Amino acid sequence: MSNCTTSAEAGNNNSVDRADIEWPRRVVSGLQPTGALHIGNYFGAVRRCVRLQDKGDDLMIFIADLHSLTTHQDPAALQENVLDLTACLLASGIDPDRSVLFTQSSVARHSELCWLLTCLATHARLAHLPQYKDKSAKMKEVPLGLLLYPVLQAADVLVYRGTHVPVGVDQLQHLQVASQLVRTFHHRFGRTFPTPKPLLAEDGSDRLLSLRDPSKKMSKSDTDPKSCILLTDSDDTILLKLRKAVTDFTPQVTFDRENRPGVSNLIAVHCLAADKLPEEAVEEADGLDTGRYKRVVAAALSEALGPVRERAAALRRRPELLRDVLRHGAVRARVRADEVYESVLARVGLAPPVARLARAAS
Amino acid sequence: MSNCTTSAEAGNNNSVDRADIEWPRRVVSGLQPTGALHIGNYFGAVRRCVRLQDKGDDLMIFIADLHSLTTHQDPAALQENVLDLTACLLASGIDPDRSVLFTQSSVARHSELCWLLTCLATHARLAHLPQYKDKSAKMKEVPLGLLLYPVLQAADVLVYRGTHVPVGVDQLQHLQVASQLVRTFHHRFGRTFPTPKPLLAEDGSDRLLSLRDPSKKMSKSDTDPKSCILLTDSDDTILLKLRKAVTDFTPQVTFDRENRPGVSNLIAVHCLAADKLPEEAVEEADGLDTGRYKRVVAAALSEALGPVRERAAALRRRPELLRDVLRHGAVRARVRADEVYESVLARVGLAPPVARLARAAS
Repeated sequence: MSNCTTSAEAGNNNSVDRADIEWPRRVVSGLQPTGALHIGNYFGAVRRCVRLQDKGDDLMIFIADLHSLTTHQDPAALQENVLDLTACLLASGIDPDRSVLFTQSSVARHSELCWLLTCLATHARLAHLPQYKDKSAKMKEVPLGLLLYPVLQAADVLVYRGTHVPVGVDQLQHLQVASQLVRTFHHRFGRTFPTPKPLLAEDGSDRLLSLRDPSKKMSKSDTDPKSCILLTDSDDTILLKLRKAVTDFTPQVTFDRENRPGVSNLIAVHCLAADKLPEEAVEEADGLDTGRYKRVVAAALSEALGPVRERAAALRRRPELLRDVLRHGAVRARVRADEVYESVLARVGLAPPVARLARAAS
Repeated sequence: MSNCTTSAEAGNNNSVDRADIEWPRRVVSGLQPTGALHIGNYFGAVRRCVRLQDKGDDLMIFIADLHSLTTHQDPAALQENVLDLTACLLASGIDPDRSVLFTQSSVARHSELCWLLTCLATHARLAHLPQYKDKSAKMKEVPLGLLLYPVLQAADVLVYRGTHVPVGVDQLQHLQVASQLVRTFHHRFGRTFPTPKPLLAEDGSDRLLSLRDPSKKMSKSDTDPKSCILLTDSDDTILLKLRKAVTDFTPQVTFDRENRPGVSNLIAVHCLAADKLPEEAVEEADGLDTGRYKRVVAAALSEALGPVRERAAALRRRPELLRDVLRHGAVRARVRADEVYESVLARVGLAPPVARLARAAS
């Protein structure tokens, strides 16, 4: 082993690990504005971010409107969805003074860094990613944005020197693309970014199942609206959907994901809503059959979601406030992105950004 | 024929033609900073732009540094090449007060619009373009930037609502990509851009041949340095290279591109340098053999290039002046790009840009 490091070695794992020591922990999370969230999105993405914030993390949370354009979007609906999600984030406890909350499209550096990374990415690497294969298989004409999706994701994180990214298991491969782009960038231009690390959900929020068919994941795109519970669902709707939830022919409440996926999924929802461990939930359900247990789960869910739902609805009636919050976040995000991007420009050999003052001269 | 137009019709040729009437003529031209220019580049790109400017065209001329990153660039060399090209453009007569001269990377809207267009482009359409096929065929790992090259080119023009683009014949297909992206954008979001039209070189400057092998195009990447004349070549070097130029065994000077490509190429160079038509050049060469005619061509070329070369060298010794010019251009270009991009954001359903004043609040 040698202590000598050359720039050619900058991309190896050893130096990447050392690089991570240099950069302070910063969590970057993006959420697509897809309209109403289901409870998996809420617990797995929104509430997780709130908890990271409340534990003191330096959190950048953005609404991934540029990513949403990789599939067909109605312009008016997109604007509404951005405000819906903003209201939801604030209602859930995102504090726009502590965390930086903004839309992706309001910070040009995302797109700018995306281009630079596009010059380092290869078609071969991206075209075999499962999410791309799944989505593109259903399309007649595949937009290139879909192929470049993980490159923009990498830019989203790297442009803030994000060190950690909350992800679901199905996003791990996208984060590997980011790591690979970091290595390529470092190898060519010298060390510039931390290698972002995944923060995986430990509460099962990324694997909630369909209430109507526990062999599938819970998904908003499911044709049966009773298959998933939305954050906007009323208490009555929550109860109704849970009562219709498919379980099995055993009345006892036991946790066994493999053999009893339906009941175990109810327990998972209960645990997320009431902050319990499965064994605690099962203990609470002692003596209840699954039918009565569903009422317990519904009550816990209503208790967890009700206040968020109401605050979100109240905030949603104040679109100017929401836009102000996003503008405030955009300004803060830009300052951070500018700082990183300036060093990127120098590395790559592009001219430094024109001083802001110069604008006055136009 | 009906006078009724629906948004679904916005992409057809008829409405595109009408659209062109609405937008004032604006010429957008990008030049890659590839180091010293050869005379084909100079006459075909640089001098053409100067002449468009001097005829009163609204000219945006940018140094395509982002495009140059689609192939491997040494960061230090890239910076030098940008300044070299800037000096050359100014020395050739680009007036940075009349025309807008800037680097592509200094205006974020290029990259931002590129992302939006990437979501409308398809892999199938881009992967079959001849330039992509040629370049990628020589590579082991093809960077995606090379595939997206024409999409960024489209963004370069559309972000200023450019109506005309000076191109060589080999760039026509890239302009067709831009036209197709305009149609797709209009079909989905309504009419927003003019359809950019090509301005083809009429002086043969885009088809100069190698001096050493008239079956090939003149190219800087030719392994034989005597195959092309650079703008930086001294008068002696110009004469030397022309004396070594391959012609044929007929001493008379006649213009016949097909049967006498070597001599005809000399005539073409002569015509570009001295602003002549081939018949005028041939008349002037009356009584000269090709050997003596080469001296005439060298003299004309030295006369045309000498002053530019000297002014460029003098300007190149003032890098801060060159950077100031580029900064000034960037500020002006941004104002124009911001105006167009704001309407693009509204069309697509993205939030309007955050007011510049908000920056002060950070």
